[in-house]
Amino acid sequence: MPRLVECVPNVSEGRRRDVIDRLAAAIRGVAEVRLLDQTSDADHNRSVFTFAGDAEAVARAAHALVDATLRELDMRTHTGAHPRLGAVDVIPFVPLAGMTMDECVALAHRVGREIAERHQLPVYFYAKAALRPERVRLPDIRKPQYEGLAELLATSHVPDAGPAQLHLTAGAVVVGARPPLIAFNIELDTTDLKLAQRIAKEIRESSGGLPAVQAKGFMLTDPPRAQVSMNLLDHTTTSLATVWHEVEARANAAGVTVLRGELIGLVPLDAALQVTASALKLDGFRRDRVIESHFLE
Amino acid sequence: MPRLVECVPNVSEGRRRDVIDRLAAAIRGVAEVRLLDQTSDADHNRSVFTFAGDAEAVARAAHALVDATLRELDMRTHTGAHPRLGAVDVIPFVPLAGMTMDECVALAHRVGREIAERHQLPVYFYAKAALRPERVRLPDIRKPQYEGLAELLATSHVPDAGPAQLHLTAGAVVVGARPPLIAFNIELDTTDLKLAQRIAKEIRESSGGLPAVQAKGFMLTDPPRAQVSMNLLDHTTTSLATVWHEVEARANAAGVTVLRGELIGLVPLDAALQVTASALKLDGFRRDRVIESHFLE
Repeated sequence: MPRLVECVPNVSEGRRRDVIDRLAAAIRGVAEVRLLDQTSDADHNRSVFTFAGDAEAVARAAHALVDATLRELDMRTHTGAHPRLGAVDVIPFVPLAGMTMDECVALAHRVGREIAERHQLPVYFYAKAALRPERVRLPDIRKPQYEGLAELLATSHVPDAGPAQLHLTAGAVVVGARPPLIAFNIELDTTDLKLAQRIAKEIRESSGGLPAVQAKGFMLTDPPRAQVSMNLLDHTTTSLATVWHEVEARANAAGVTVLRGELIGLVPLDAALQVTASALKLDGFRRDRVIESHFLE
Repeated sequence: MPRLVECVPNVSEGRRRDVIDRLAAAIRGVAEVRLLDQTSDADHNRSVFTFAGDAEAVARAAHALVDATLRELDMRTHTGAHPRLGAVDVIPFVPLAGMTMDECVALAHRVGREIAERHQLPVYFYAKAALRPERVRLPDIRKPQYEGLAELLATSHVPDAGPAQLHLTAGAVVVGARPPLIAFNIELDTTDLKLAQRIAKEIRESSGGLPAVQAKGFMLTDPPRAQVSMNLLDHTTTSLATVWHEVEARANAAGVTVLRGELIGLVPLDAALQVTASALKLDGFRRDRVIESHFLE
């Protein structure tokens, strides 16, 4: 059985190209891991690496990235618009084919404890790997930021692993497990931004819509068209097929047709196959009905 | 890059369990090949094996099956309802992820010539691997059957490879390359068999419908429901999404809703992703946008 895991660490360096290249090289240097994407933002002074592979190989690559980042960065001189607690700010593990969320939580706990021990770093567990209810949401953990963390380490921010003492150059690390995040946009055949904003509001969880869905209305410029831009935080809760149907029904009710969908980045196999199953009304269509799935590493 | 190939050989033995088991074992004994399916029919006295893997491993498994079958079977005593030319009657190679049809044709030619040489067997190339227009269709090649082949070997049935002489115990082999065959049924919410038969007639290629589609109307018994049963002979020509839309539109026009689809056996990844792309109106959605596809062997 394949045990594929995706890892999407966020690192507090988005400006120095040579440093970012060395961090990417640390990931690429691990056998059987593929670096699928890498994006850096200078204003945020932050880079996001997306890599995947067998669970054990991914754990090795996470360690390699932490090692390299701790050699390169010094949080005492870090500036950037994005909130952060440390040099390796957050390490989410995401289950793919052959891996359950529970197994990913166990992997996050193991790797987090290894990092804490290896580098004497305070480590917090978040999302599905959270050990306390107030540490499920990343913004809650990150609130004091690097600069304010030291004074809270004995009270609200006692680490889940590692010493209750700030690592001066590396700060602290947040490690967790979560479902894959799917960024999905739907373009409407209209310039009516208000329609896209109304649909977004109706379908997003924060205003009582679909669970695990974030949505906003946007205006595209060339050509001018209204777009519903979404994040699906858990496709096993709300699928791509469901958001498509909900957006299409609302657009059609307003006399507007849906032009096209757009998937940003890569999508997990199971999320794509959910759409196949829905469109063809297939009962019990699972990954193992796809020939190639039997040849996943 | 993965180079996955499916191979679906048909062997002229569907009755003796112990023999069939040894043939399956010959395939299973080849490293990096997976036997995905195996079905035997006693009336036809014929077995179909479906295996897949990297192109080179699949070639080795095809040879292993031919070797084992030639040890076990004797066409001089073979009886069965299904037309056949030989012990290993037909060996189709099917391109999966990472393999083009042209590469599969080259593989079929190479393996066919190796079989001809190794066993002094007449070999014919069919479907996409055909070297003559009159050998594209399997029934045309198979018409004389084993019993009538000897006298045609110097005229209409000069082999494409190997000697123009019948192999007494093994007959001849037909080797080829073709797209994956997808068996797909759509169940209608009606007992009106005539509607299913009319839709089937309208959409099948043989009566001027969709290219590379075979279709028939059937009646299911428990519960009683009309069904359109289809074979898609080339999903790159006519996709699952297209046949679904065509059947649904015709059913709806007759006031009947479509209940569910049913995929028989396994489906190639690309055929499933075509449905995802169609349902979400995605531009340029390809296999490499699926995370797990980067980890195919």
